Amino acid sequence: MKFAEKFSKRRERILSPLCIGLDPEMEKLPVIARNQINPLSYFCKEIIDATSEYACAYKPNIAFFERYGSKGIAQFEEVIDHIKTKYPSIPIVADVKRGDLANTSKEYAKYYFQTLGVDSITVSPYMGMDSLLPYLDMGGHIFVLCLTSNEGSADFQRLKLEFSTPFYEHLAVFFDGECSKYPGQIGIVVGATHPFDLEKVRKLTSSLHILIPGFGAQGGKLEDILPICGNLSLVNSSRSILFASSGDDFATKAKLACSTIHSEIYRILGIN
Amino acid sequence: MKFAEKFSKRRERILSPLCIGLDPEMEKLPVIARNQINPLSYFCKEIIDATSEYACAYKPNIAFFERYGSKGIAQFEEVIDHIKTKYPSIPIVADVKRGDLANTSKEYAKYYFQTLGVDSITVSPYMGMDSLLPYLDMGGHIFVLCLTSNEGSADFQRLKLEFSTPFYEHLAVFFDGECSKYPGQIGIVVGATHPFDLEKVRKLTSSLHILIPGFGAQGGKLEDILPICGNLSLVNSSRSILFASSGDDFATKAKLACSTIHSEIYRILGIN
Repeated sequence: MKFAEKFSKRRERILSPLCIGLDPEMEKLPVIARNQINPLSYFCKEIIDATSEYACAYKPNIAFFERYGSKGIAQFEEVIDHIKTKYPSIPIVADVKRGDLANTSKEYAKYYFQTLGVDSITVSPYMGMDSLLPYLDMGGHIFVLCLTSNEGSADFQRLKLEFSTPFYEHLAVFFDGECSKYPGQIGIVVGATHPFDLEKVRKLTSSLHILIPGFGAQGGKLEDILPICGNLSLVNSSRSILFASSGDDFATKAKLACSTIHSEIYRILGIN
Repeated sequence: MKFAEKFSKRRERILSPLCIGLDPEMEKLPVIARNQINPLSYFCKEIIDATSEYACAYKPNIAFFERYGSKGIAQFEEVIDHIKTKYPSIPIVADVKRGDLANTSKEYAKYYFQTLGVDSITVSPYMGMDSLLPYLDMGGHIFVLCLTSNEGSADFQRLKLEFSTPFYEHLAVFFDGECSKYPGQIGIVVGATHPFDLEKVRKLTSSLHILIPGFGAQGGKLEDILPICGNLSLVNSSRSILFASSGDDFATKAKLACSTIHSEIYRILGIN
């Protein structure tokens, strides 16, 4: 099933856009996880099993696995496999932020969409449209970085172009246009730390999915985001769920954190 | 030894800026390589052993390894280890084009600079300066994508900012400025397919290393590049060396291709 359909079904099923980011930073893992042979996949699988009912999507970030080379990547693959096998209705967004020449991107596309079979990946737009075509031509879905949640987003993404449009805004409109050629295959990333800009971008783009990271630990607020982000969005939280407890009860506490966020989402959206 | 010093010594030793890109695309590998248990590392190590005398640097692109997941990454690590052990004076630029939030980039930095111990990596600038600090703070060297060799480079990199400066030019000047804080640790990537822009960028930036891919198979010409790129540059070729022959003699033919390029470089630079 394609990302757009799978996401839409999942969202309708749980009535929540909560995406759970899987960023298993070794130093923050509870001792019980660090004592495992495969600490990263152990930790993520426990988190997944505890939180699946609240997940509109899972977003594992490969950097935390890649740090440990081939052994880390093996654990990344194990986590993907776990979600696909046990929770086949939950979309997986591999947060990899790749970007390279077309002939090289093709290699990434083969790995993520054919070998691993994830539903979407995050990509960097900097090298231009031809660098992203291999993902789309393979039928894959991409979330293109647009306005990221960090302070450094101002360095280049907010630069004003001729005629005063900020770069990120031009980029959002550019990819919204590309959606006519690749319907349902393109989304953008806009940080929850920029609610004003998120609202502007949402109004300018009707076809794009929006992945919104940065609420919770990074400072974005659900109250600001949910009323404006619409039905094509995913709102991501990582650290406030994963590290809700540093003890043996980390999975239970992660579930509790999700449940709290879930209730908050229902309250803000007026769902009974 | 830091990249800047290692690169400068190597360049003075062989009087050539030739960087050899290691892009082992499986479909293009000779049968003898594809029949190995570890085809990617076998192929790369044979190429390295045949071409080392001509290499000012090696630039393995991780995408061609990552495509095969943990098994591919294990071969990537084997290739890095081979260069470090047998040719410790040749700098390694890991072509990975990573870019993420600072806390995530730190994971990449640890893997590439601490675990693998490569000399430099390529990175994407899109997320801004704070996303690149973990590499620099660890003492690593980065080549930041600036004006890439593909046609899609026009989509965003050439967009004109207020006051008519193209985006890539602003970026080059921005990073040249950052060099005062991180001397010898920053370079940019400018494709050989844009000799006019390369000349402009070289004049605008005095401190940056420049990595110039795209000559040979992609169409850039040595005659256009060498006279303008200066001593802080690496000129990369991949496919025209790696795939000089598709037969059992691939390594010998790769060496021959390097030797031809080397002579051409010496001719253009007027070295006897």
